Amino acid sequence: MNCCDLINKTKRKKKLTENEIQWLVNEYTNENIPDYQISAWLMAVCLNSLSDDETLALTLAMRNSGDILDLSNINGITVDKHSTGGVGDKTSLIIGPVAAACGVYVPKMSGRGLGHTGGTIDKLESINGYRTELSLNEFINIVNKTGFSIVSQSGKLCPADKKLYALRNASGTVDSIPLICASIMSKKLAVSADCILLDVKYGSGAFMKTYDDAKKLADIMTRIGNMAGKKCSAMVTDMNIPLGRNIGNALEVAEAVEILKGRCNGKLYDLCLDLSAKMLELAGKGDFTSCKQMASDAITSGKAAGILEKTIELHGGDARIVNDTSLLPQPRYSHNVYAEKSGIIQKMDSEEIGMTSLIIGAGRKNKADSIDMSAGIIIEKECGEHVQKGDLLLTLYSSSITDFSEANRRALNSITIE
Amino acid sequence: MNCCDLINKTKRKKKLTENEIQWLVNEYTNENIPDYQISAWLMAVCLNSLSDDETLALTLAMRNSGDILDLSNINGITVDKHSTGGVGDKTSLIIGPVAAACGVYVPKMSGRGLGHTGGTIDKLESINGYRTELSLNEFINIVNKTGFSIVSQSGKLCPADKKLYALRNASGTVDSIPLICASIMSKKLAVSADCILLDVKYGSGAFMKTYDDAKKLADIMTRIGNMAGKKCSAMVTDMNIPLGRNIGNALEVAEAVEILKGRCNGKLYDLCLDLSAKMLELAGKGDFTSCKQMASDAITSGKAAGILEKTIELHGGDARIVNDTSLLPQPRYSHNVYAEKSGIIQKMDSEEIGMTSLIIGAGRKNKADSIDMSAGIIIEKECGEHVQKGDLLLTLYSSSITDFSEANRRALNSITIE
Repeated sequence: MNCCDLINKTKRKKKLTENEIQWLVNEYTNENIPDYQISAWLMAVCLNSLSDDETLALTLAMRNSGDILDLSNINGITVDKHSTGGVGDKTSLIIGPVAAACGVYVPKMSGRGLGHTGGTIDKLESINGYRTELSLNEFINIVNKTGFSIVSQSGKLCPADKKLYALRNASGTVDSIPLICASIMSKKLAVSADCILLDVKYGSGAFMKTYDDAKKLADIMTRIGNMAGKKCSAMVTDMNIPLGRNIGNALEVAEAVEILKGRCNGKLYDLCLDLSAKMLELAGKGDFTSCKQMASDAITSGKAAGILEKTIELHGGDARIVNDTSLLPQPRYSHNVYAEKSGIIQKMDSEEIGMTSLIIGAGRKNKADSIDMSAGIIIEKECGEHVQKGDLLLTLYSSSITDFSEANRRALNSITIE
Repeated sequence: MNCCDLINKTKRKKKLTENEIQWLVNEYTNENIPDYQISAWLMAVCLNSLSDDETLALTLAMRNSGDILDLSNINGITVDKHSTGGVGDKTSLIIGPVAAACGVYVPKMSGRGLGHTGGTIDKLESINGYRTELSLNEFINIVNKTGFSIVSQSGKLCPADKKLYALRNASGTVDSIPLICASIMSKKLAVSADCILLDVKYGSGAFMKTYDDAKKLADIMTRIGNMAGKKCSAMVTDMNIPLGRNIGNALEVAEAVEILKGRCNGKLYDLCLDLSAKMLELAGKGDFTSCKQMASDAITSGKAAGILEKTIELHGGDARIVNDTSLLPQPRYSHNVYAEKSGIIQKMDSEEIGMTSLIIGAGRKNKADSIDMSAGIIIEKECGEHVQKGDLLLTLYSSSITDFSEANRRALNSITIE
């Protein structure tokens, strides 16, 4: 096979065969095809797209480039969940224990944050002692004991995705729905849970800026998941405003605990019930309405919170935080952001708030940066609320900076009052 | 400036500015941008095209990447001619002397052949002693003395084009009209003649397979040439059948001499008169009809043949070949290709005939291959002629092979008799 011939096929909107796509992925992963040929092909894919069959072949070839987890030792039906990421998205920490409390197994691998978006692994590492790197056996043992575990994604999963993602990032070929689908689904299929729930975010803080694009991505990921033999479903959810009140690693763990303790309601609580119900429905636990009732009961009964506590303990973490969130890293400095005029909060821009949290130390500009676990933002007023000039809008927390002037500017910029 | 931002602009059909295109070309030529970014951009250009302004900026940036010839010491108006290449295309050897005989100056840089297409420099090197590598001063002196000289393209012209062409060839991004235009026109503008005539070939033996694509390329090259301040014109001509009767280096020089001696007419002769007339018209020598008469007179009078003879002599070549073509390299072996059935010759596929000439040693499969100067093909029957089974169709010549069986098969395959 000749790489230029395959590039020309995609360029001319002719379909590649499964074999041809496998060959491209394998030869590229094994460094037999240079970057400059694959980046040309990726651009052809960005502009001419791929069929479902091609996207499936690409996803499977990428999945097959590394380890595929053997979860057969887990004692029941397994459900994975993936969010395309955003600001304040701590749902995994909530719906994992809730679903586990309702009798399904949630073996989850997560990633770290970069730029304005957070990562679940960073959040968990704000819990003193919590180990995110476990052997497969340890991981499976915890899932069998509590129904739920989150670990850092193994470096041996999908090496093809790592190489392709880095090249896409460096060659202006990131925003292609089939390529995003293959990147996400190859990793999900390598984890190999029986069921996969996808939470596809849209809006300012999300990767997909519009509902329509998020819906397209949700639809193709669901189709590819189903074609690969998994029970797969997707929800398209709003990320124009941050999810919940707290942003920042320890702050988000604290808010997750509050939700699991039944002490919070609102949009985040509602979304978590919906996502949990979808996971349970996928796993065959009943229809959506009855699954939602089960999820709600798991919170009210304290069972879900107990599962989080036990899971943290088995990961070596300080499980006391479930009953006393003040044991999480506490910030040394805080800063109040006040309204500069009166009116109704029309908009609270997720991406700008995410960037504010980055400035005060809660995130990473570059992959190698370290994080201030105590840093973050508490949103004191909701979108749609009426505020007076001088009202407290946000509180910023940090242990790493004392000069909040830039963050204050950026924070005010994120909120539109009219 | 950031390369990914520029790639994304072209990907999203937004126009790049002149500065942005200059930056891309300069940074790439200076090896500050990696191949994998430029190949992604080239693919975006293949699929989304470029505007005329962008194509002009690209062409000029490529021209400016290396030397630009100073032809101001030539004693009159200079006319360059470029053919997009084909099989049996020896027009440069004919129309250069003809135009020079009519009072214009033709300083021409040419290339070598590759694959099924021949190159003018190879043809000239079949003349014993002819030097194709001259200093700029020697080149200009010959042009001033005879009106005409052809040398090998200087390695210092358009290094950006060399680098981009190699990358396009290796990344499936060759067939883009703005990229082809910029590649050709950057070199033509670096030679910097006052007028440029473009002979854009279409058909099986040509780079552009259809008339429509050749017309598009001809139109944009003319526009870019004019925008760059040159008098520029194009003809779109047929390369579905080979040009003339002879294919192969020494054989084509011999045929060019026959035409200049006025001993041949037919399609090649007619095309040469048309091209010469266009060159003269561009140079302001009169209207097309009167220029054609001047060209015809230059042949009849023997003046054009005299110019070729003098030019060969000044290049150090054996100028006696103009009066005795048997002094050109003679083949050791020949092979007759006979018709296998009776009927009318419907088609004589240029590309297949070019491939046949390659097999018998007249061309190069790879850039480093050497050429058998004596090898080639004489076409004994024309397209449209009625032939009997057993009639001689082609004669194959070679000094390097004795087994003509594959060439015979391929030759028969090139001719359709119905």
